Amino acid sequence: MTARASFREKYEAAAAANDSLLCVGLDPDPSRLAPGADIDAWLREVVEATADLVCCYKPNAAFFEARGSVGMEALLQLIDGIPDEIPVLLDAKRGDVGHSAEFYARAVFEVLGADAVTVNSYLGGDAVEPFLVYEDRHAFVLCRTSNAGAGELQDRAVGGGRPLYLEVAARANEWNTRGNVGLVVGATYPEEARAIRELCPDLLFLMPGVGAQAGELEAAVHAALDARAGGIIVNASRSVLYPAGGGAAASRAEAQRLRDALREAVRTAGHAGRAD
Amino acid sequence: MTARASFREKYEAAAAANDSLLCVGLDPDPSRLAPGADIDAWLREVVEATADLVCCYKPNAAFFEARGSVGMEALLQLIDGIPDEIPVLLDAKRGDVGHSAEFYARAVFEVLGADAVTVNSYLGGDAVEPFLVYEDRHAFVLCRTSNAGAGELQDRAVGGGRPLYLEVAARANEWNTRGNVGLVVGATYPEEARAIRELCPDLLFLMPGVGAQAGELEAAVHAALDARAGGIIVNASRSVLYPAGGGAAASRAEAQRLRDALREAVRTAGHAGRAD
Repeated sequence: MTARASFREKYEAAAAANDSLLCVGLDPDPSRLAPGADIDAWLREVVEATADLVCCYKPNAAFFEARGSVGMEALLQLIDGIPDEIPVLLDAKRGDVGHSAEFYARAVFEVLGADAVTVNSYLGGDAVEPFLVYEDRHAFVLCRTSNAGAGELQDRAVGGGRPLYLEVAARANEWNTRGNVGLVVGATYPEEARAIRELCPDLLFLMPGVGAQAGELEAAVHAALDARAGGIIVNASRSVLYPAGGGAAASRAEAQRLRDALREAVRTAGHAGRAD
Repeated sequence: MTARASFREKYEAAAAANDSLLCVGLDPDPSRLAPGADIDAWLREVVEATADLVCCYKPNAAFFEARGSVGMEALLQLIDGIPDEIPVLLDAKRGDVGHSAEFYARAVFEVLGADAVTVNSYLGGDAVEPFLVYEDRHAFVLCRTSNAGAGELQDRAVGGGRPLYLEVAARANEWNTRGNVGLVVGATYPEEARAIRELCPDLLFLMPGVGAQAGELEAAVHAALDARAGGIIVNASRSVLYPAGGGAAASRAEAQRLRDALREAVRTAGHAGRAD
């Protein structure tokens, strides 16, 4: 038997093969398609049209759960149909006390077969640990999120004056004894992303919230790249899934545009990089 | 059409009718039953055996998700089979950015038909709001949880020196414009529960973590009761679901023991109450 490739290995191989730091978020919102359209078939089309342009796919559990057990079956089949060489990160933001967390980890990793998951560490490290015992998977701890209200709690200064999100980042370093802890760091807050990267040079960052503007994307990449010009997974969901005009060709074009913009941002970071 | 009763109304009616502050947690762990036993049938038996002894049922989503789409269908049917006069609080600890949170709220309230849910506010108030627009439902914000590692982040002092969990409690008061915000307050930490009650005199507390010792239970009740000798929902899961010896009669006996211990604690709080 050969060992299963870890999430990190799959991510690095896909990022290299596709020369891409782009992750496409799979958030099936039926209201974004024509009435009666098959949303699951559409997700499969988008995956087929973009699989050579991405380093990861990120289905969001909320959109599947809103369809009940049918949605959970669709999620299982979607994950099963994603090419083996592209890792799957389930955006589920789970977090519960130890015994319940064990069941969440089983659901995500064993039942659904995801390679990675997002988790919430408000309950403490013992709520994260049940995910980390799956050594070949990855758990991305919510650190500084991309939403407008992210700072309401995350920016509050805790002991020593550093904000809560940096306290979480510091804990994530401690929890990372198996090399399978990552962080969720909103692409919308480059300044915060830079502070987190300084504290956590080795962790993978999942960066949601990339908008349409190339400037934002560039700032996020420059702030968050690791010393090897990698270590980030930049997610776009709606702009790829529901492109203006519609159709898989438009999804592919948008994914290509973002992939290329990310490459360009990595290139310019190389010039700017060691100066600051 | 008559308006649907709100979670709070259902809780208060059930607490009065059954003279009970006990919630039974429904966490189907097949490893706790004999091999081949029908775990869903067992949950139904426990509900039948205890419905006149409780103020709430609390299924935990983790245990159902670990069984895939079959588990989600079982959860739907379990909730559907609980007597209408007993409210159902789904322990799901959801929390995501606004658009995703809307889908989680739809899943919990519209698809599964729960009366209330537990939520995680690390992302800020905008992640909680999509649950609160369902005015007849209730969202219990994780405040000070019952697990051993709860204090790792929750106890960190934020600006002004108060711990993060009290900051969350203060925010919950602000978010409570529709009267449908509650808090999760571990029964294992009476001192913290008392501080939260002082800050939040009107919020409902969900209190998990009641162990076998009556002393713990009494301390938790004395700390957390509101001015009307109510406002708490004390949860027990495993001791009722998987009683020593097994069988629905043993589950009923344990629920009765806990219900009566809670009544006694309320009575002694009445004596002790206004003194401190």
